[in-house]
Amino acid sequence: MKRTCSVDPWLITEESLQPQDNRLAESLMSLGNGHMGMRGNFEEEFSGDSLQGTYIAGIYYPDKTRVGWWKIGYPEYFAKVLNAPNFIGIRVNIDGRGVDLAHWQVLSFRRTLDMRRSLLTRTFTVADETGHRFSVETTRFLSRKRREVAAIRYAIRPLDQAADIELTPYLDGDVANEDANYGEKFWELVNQSCTVDVSTLTMKTKKTEFFVTTAMNWSVTGVDNPSITHREHDKHVENTVSSRVGQGQSLQLTKFVAVTTSRDWAIEELDSAAEKRVREAKDLGWDMLLDEHTNAWERIWADGDVAIMGDAEAQQGVRFNIFQLHQTYTGDDPRLNIGPKGFTGEKYGGSTYWDTEAYCLPFYLSTMDSSIARNLLIYRHNHLEKAIENAAKLGCRGALYPMVTMNGEESHNEWEITFEEIHRNAAISYAIFNYVRYTGDEEYLAEYGYDVLLETSRYWADRAHYQPRKDVYMILGVTGPNEYENNINNNWYTNTMAAWNLRYTLDVRRYLERHHPQRLKDIETTRGLTAEERQDWATIKDKMYLPVIEEFGVFAQQDGFMDKEQLTVDDLPAEERPLNQNWSWDRILRSVFIKQADVLQGLFFLNHEFDLETKRRNFEFYEPRTVHESSLSPCVHSILAGELGLESKAYELYLRTARLDLDNYNNDTEDGLHITSMAGSWMSIVYGFGGLRIHDDTLHLQPFLPTAWEGYSFKLVFRGRRLRVSVSRDACHIGHEQGKPLDVSVHNCMVHLEQGQATDVSHA
Amino acid sequence: MKRTCSVDPWLITEESLQPQDNRLAESLMSLGNGHMGMRGNFEEEFSGDSLQGTYIAGIYYPDKTRVGWWKIGYPEYFAKVLNAPNFIGIRVNIDGRGVDLAHWQVLSFRRTLDMRRSLLTRTFTVADETGHRFSVETTRFLSRKRREVAAIRYAIRPLDQAADIELTPYLDGDVANEDANYGEKFWELVNQSCTVDVSTLTMKTKKTEFFVTTAMNWSVTGVDNPSITHREHDKHVENTVSSRVGQGQSLQLTKFVAVTTSRDWAIEELDSAAEKRVREAKDLGWDMLLDEHTNAWERIWADGDVAIMGDAEAQQGVRFNIFQLHQTYTGDDPRLNIGPKGFTGEKYGGSTYWDTEAYCLPFYLSTMDSSIARNLLIYRHNHLEKAIENAAKLGCRGALYPMVTMNGEESHNEWEITFEEIHRNAAISYAIFNYVRYTGDEEYLAEYGYDVLLETSRYWADRAHYQPRKDVYMILGVTGPNEYENNINNNWYTNTMAAWNLRYTLDVRRYLERHHPQRLKDIETTRGLTAEERQDWATIKDKMYLPVIEEFGVFAQQDGFMDKEQLTVDDLPAEERPLNQNWSWDRILRSVFIKQADVLQGLFFLNHEFDLETKRRNFEFYEPRTVHESSLSPCVHSILAGELGLESKAYELYLRTARLDLDNYNNDTEDGLHITSMAGSWMSIVYGFGGLRIHDDTLHLQPFLPTAWEGYSFKLVFRGRRLRVSVSRDACHIGHEQGKPLDVSVHNCMVHLEQGQATDVSHA
Repeated sequence: MKRTCSVDPWLITEESLQPQDNRLAESLMSLGNGHMGMRGNFEEEFSGDSLQGTYIAGIYYPDKTRVGWWKIGYPEYFAKVLNAPNFIGIRVNIDGRGVDLAHWQVLSFRRTLDMRRSLLTRTFTVADETGHRFSVETTRFLSRKRREVAAIRYAIRPLDQAADIELTPYLDGDVANEDANYGEKFWELVNQSCTVDVSTLTMKTKKTEFFVTTAMNWSVTGVDNPSITHREHDKHVENTVSSRVGQGQSLQLTKFVAVTTSRDWAIEELDSAAEKRVREAKDLGWDMLLDEHTNAWERIWADGDVAIMGDAEAQQGVRFNIFQLHQTYTGDDPRLNIGPKGFTGEKYGGSTYWDTEAYCLPFYLSTMDSSIARNLLIYRHNHLEKAIENAAKLGCRGALYPMVTMNGEESHNEWEITFEEIHRNAAISYAIFNYVRYTGDEEYLAEYGYDVLLETSRYWADRAHYQPRKDVYMILGVTGPNEYENNINNNWYTNTMAAWNLRYTLDVRRYLERHHPQRLKDIETTRGLTAEERQDWATIKDKMYLPVIEEFGVFAQQDGFMDKEQLTVDDLPAEERPLNQNWSWDRILRSVFIKQADVLQGLFFLNHEFDLETKRRNFEFYEPRTVHESSLSPCVHSILAGELGLESKAYELYLRTARLDLDNYNNDTEDGLHITSMAGSWMSIVYGFGGLRIHDDTLHLQPFLPTAWEGYSFKLVFRGRRLRVSVSRDACHIGHEQGKPLDVSVHNCMVHLEQGQATDVSHA
Repeated sequence: MKRTCSVDPWLITEESLQPQDNRLAESLMSLGNGHMGMRGNFEEEFSGDSLQGTYIAGIYYPDKTRVGWWKIGYPEYFAKVLNAPNFIGIRVNIDGRGVDLAHWQVLSFRRTLDMRRSLLTRTFTVADETGHRFSVETTRFLSRKRREVAAIRYAIRPLDQAADIELTPYLDGDVANEDANYGEKFWELVNQSCTVDVSTLTMKTKKTEFFVTTAMNWSVTGVDNPSITHREHDKHVENTVSSRVGQGQSLQLTKFVAVTTSRDWAIEELDSAAEKRVREAKDLGWDMLLDEHTNAWERIWADGDVAIMGDAEAQQGVRFNIFQLHQTYTGDDPRLNIGPKGFTGEKYGGSTYWDTEAYCLPFYLSTMDSSIARNLLIYRHNHLEKAIENAAKLGCRGALYPMVTMNGEESHNEWEITFEEIHRNAAISYAIFNYVRYTGDEEYLAEYGYDVLLETSRYWADRAHYQPRKDVYMILGVTGPNEYENNINNNWYTNTMAAWNLRYTLDVRRYLERHHPQRLKDIETTRGLTAEERQDWATIKDKMYLPVIEEFGVFAQQDGFMDKEQLTVDDLPAEERPLNQNWSWDRILRSVFIKQADVLQGLFFLNHEFDLETKRRNFEFYEPRTVHESSLSPCVHSILAGELGLESKAYELYLRTARLDLDNYNNDTEDGLHITSMAGSWMSIVYGFGGLRIHDDTLHLQPFLPTAWEGYSFKLVFRGRRLRVSVSRDACHIGHEQGKPLDVSVHNCMVHLEQGQATDVSHA
């Protein structure tokens, strides 16, 4: 754990330059607007430790894989998030010497991320070799309103005497990934144009041939008649603004940038589109641009804020999580998804894991218009044919969605994960169920949902096999959500969710029979589904083998679980944790220790199907065996603890992710933020403490207040209504802010609310 | 399958140039003398497809690993067999044009490996652009007598008219591995010296700093006063002999080479030692050098030949296998071992697998002086401390020998193999048992054996854990010899061999108590062995869980085996085999199909502990489920089939490896020969058809004659005696050629033999 930023409800502030932790700060100070993003890198040159990173949504590179021993079925490539051309850069020269905070004397330094406005500012004072001081202020943002536009303001002021200052805004395409398997560069120059007006740089990725044009222009204030030059070299265009700047005077450069890509534009239009965008931005001007950006963020917070009273650290933590999720994904483009590091680092490659369906979807469902969550679902529907190909590659019928993907193809290759962690398929079906349950949008099932349910069911039916000795269906050779066991047999979670997937598909089919018979017929004809196949599904779901541990009255993690040495986390010496940094892999695998919620993940997903006693027994059995070495784990346990009335346990588990990045708990935030687990942290509060559940078309709340807090409140959108929930020591206050009347269940009492109304339900 | 060489009892002959199969021929025509070896590359330049490969025993490179996802416990490097400086090269120029069989017209071509003498010859006729013909004869060998010496003779004759001919013998250190993980080169120049007398080239490997000096000189006959020049460039020294050569005249160059390494010499002596060796060779002259080489090979065949009557293909196959084994390992250096590809290719890296103990040891025990096998055992004893470190790395006590190694360190990194295929440890203990049983050398136990047994037992005791519910010890998370199952629980073979290892250790301890009490005390004091620990071993061996399949009365491959879909190999469509080229890895893993002998490996190793009915039931259960997709598999099944009287099955299985490389069965011989599996092929005949077993200090034979053969005979060394066994349709003829009298059991009859005596025992 390491905290480098001060605690504040809306600001993340680094109060001094901490070169040894610069990468950490860069991760924390990342900006994003769904279309693009970047780490909190400096605009000026910096020779200290830094991970320079600019990322554009949907632009990836299929890097050559690096495997120990090739295995049939491995994907041909490992998709990498691509470090894109650097467009924030502004070189700074004072009296002929380049400013570099690694070498200049830094008298003061502050870097601040304003979460309310998604704005990164720096103010610092440096002294040159003769001790003359200069103060600098920088501000940048990625427009929430105009997704292709960014703006950077750089102001510099000599404090002691006049100086010759040069500011050189540039675009640089000669960038590399640190995370390149063979040290190759992934970008090629297409063309570049350098003028003192608009300059552009068009690069394309090798292999994937994504074209990206970056355009810049700029304005300068504070000095009269600066000298302007332009210069270019391979993959690099720049302008230089030079001027004598008097003591106390401020030279201020505003750099406008536009980034267009071949994902959105015809290649021949790219340059002109970027030029048009950047001219519009300059014409609009900094203030207006910032204004519309700020307004957009205001609307986001109005729908999705969580306020915590009496705990400033928790307040900052949850806002940071909400903020970063909204920076990462805006939901207006169903070709995009939520990468595990968002726009904050290169690690993990790929953009989409089951994290999206399991952890992120509930967040977007509850805090944004339902069209956003719907786009997350359509993303998977668009990849259905590739999922069918993927299953075929592994010798199975139906659709197996990839574990990690950029474009629907599997792009990860550890056999124990890629080939065996097949439970992800059920998460994609579950997301459909969850979406429909939350939004009531049953039409989705006819339009998109049933296709996915049918093909995933087909996969499960093929992947399970009949074991005649026990008259059951089994699923062998899987990895469950607990990645600390590989190639196990009959993982309860996987088998349960597979059976559930089949059951839900048949349920949805009955709904379609009633409401969309023609559409059903069309789909089933197209996909060649027979009555026999459906009958098999019904048999398999009924005869799925679901292992139990009778002596404890709990579900069994997997067949061999009770043959393991039965230890609990309390038996582990502190110095051996985290296990994944201290134990060899085989030792982890044969141990009883669970990385992340597995049986309990099933109890969370299918919460309404299990009674409280069953949940309690399983929680009591599995929580002491769970090491939570995934950032995705504690939230699920926290939510169940909340439901079981184990309030202090729920709070303790919540703390493990609440400030995961802000306090660098896992000592890896320098690589980027844990974006998807941020949704889990939000869930801990709203589902865990707030007790949010959707069941029988009704929103249920069963809130409690952690003793460490004085109160908390959160916003919800639900079926077109906007609600506000405040929880105090004694009661839950629920307000209906907008939309049609709604009956809400609070502490199991039905409360009828109309727009503008509010009511209190006491906890007792 | 592809046969490119003609069938002959002693020769491997390629009758024409087959450029598309040149790599295959290069593998087959490899030469080796234990110290060094090389593929059957051409001496002259060849621009066609070729894998240039020269290898020196014990010289390796720790290449950077290539892994998908790093895991704790992985070794830092992947050891590569190193392509060493090329010393066979002789460039040939005729009338100013370089001879290159890829571009010259080849009128005839023959490449022949003489197995009796370990001699590679080529004769070919080429025509130049004007149609003038030249005949060439080349011969080379690696001296069996002088391990550091090689000799190459190159004779060229203009057939149609005189020509200007240049022969340029050279040494070239600018070589690379095809199998380099990141395309790096592994050698650096130390120094080079080029004269028209002796030239030397000293290179060293990066990181490991192995120094290798190659020296050459040469003599020329057939022309008077040739012009001689010398020339060098970076990492390359050469001489050129030029002369006008008349029609029908033969220009003959003999190149003498010496290769010395820092494994044998002080670095400052390397050059002078090489120079001395090469001068000695030249002084001795080609004929004498060849003579002593041939004599040495004669002695090898005298002790270790297998003759097969009535089946020329089988005869060639078994000789090829015996020949290559003797080329690979001579047993005079306990720092060396037997690489899976010997000196014939780069693939698989590493030099030592459990193949040595499981497959090769019996061959060397039976065909060479027992000191050779003893050195194989001492090799492991020398690595004991590294095996202890290796176990500690994986969190265990005692010694875990590496799966793949060059110097005792683990150098492979697939977790499912490296960390989990722990049964190899028992093979190393078993080799001690097998060696002592065969040789009667019980002193070895005191001197070296007990150390290894103690520390491997310690490992097993730690790696097994007590399962209180069943009151047994279990070993979870292993890969058995059947690498088509990973991370399984209670592999019968592993558990059985672990228990056996503990038991044998305690047996040996009782022997030491009686015969070497002081030595025992010393060892146990040094290693800190307590009575308590020994008591644990006794308990664990008695309570080891050994899974069975009751319904079939067989041992269970592993805990979950019967939950798999029960298919047999007959159910597999031909086009899906081999599975490892057609099925994704997860599908293989969850299938019932077994890659190589596993339960049956145990029945082979501990043969004397199981009755025939048990072996029969297990064979009948497992053989139909075994796909034999390892070249090491069929021999064990073949041996058991022979024992069970399933003669045609035994013969069918024998055929699968008998000519594995000669007929390129697995379509991968171009990468190198399957050296270790060659020992298995030998075992199929001597153990399988001959029924060789050692039990109660007695050599047992129970031979049968495959119906396809007219007879076969083999030589054996046993406890200082040399025996000859001939098997005809009716009887087994056994002759005692040398040594003290011996009682041998043939077909369960004890036969007393004195030197020079022979007897027949009829099969009936």
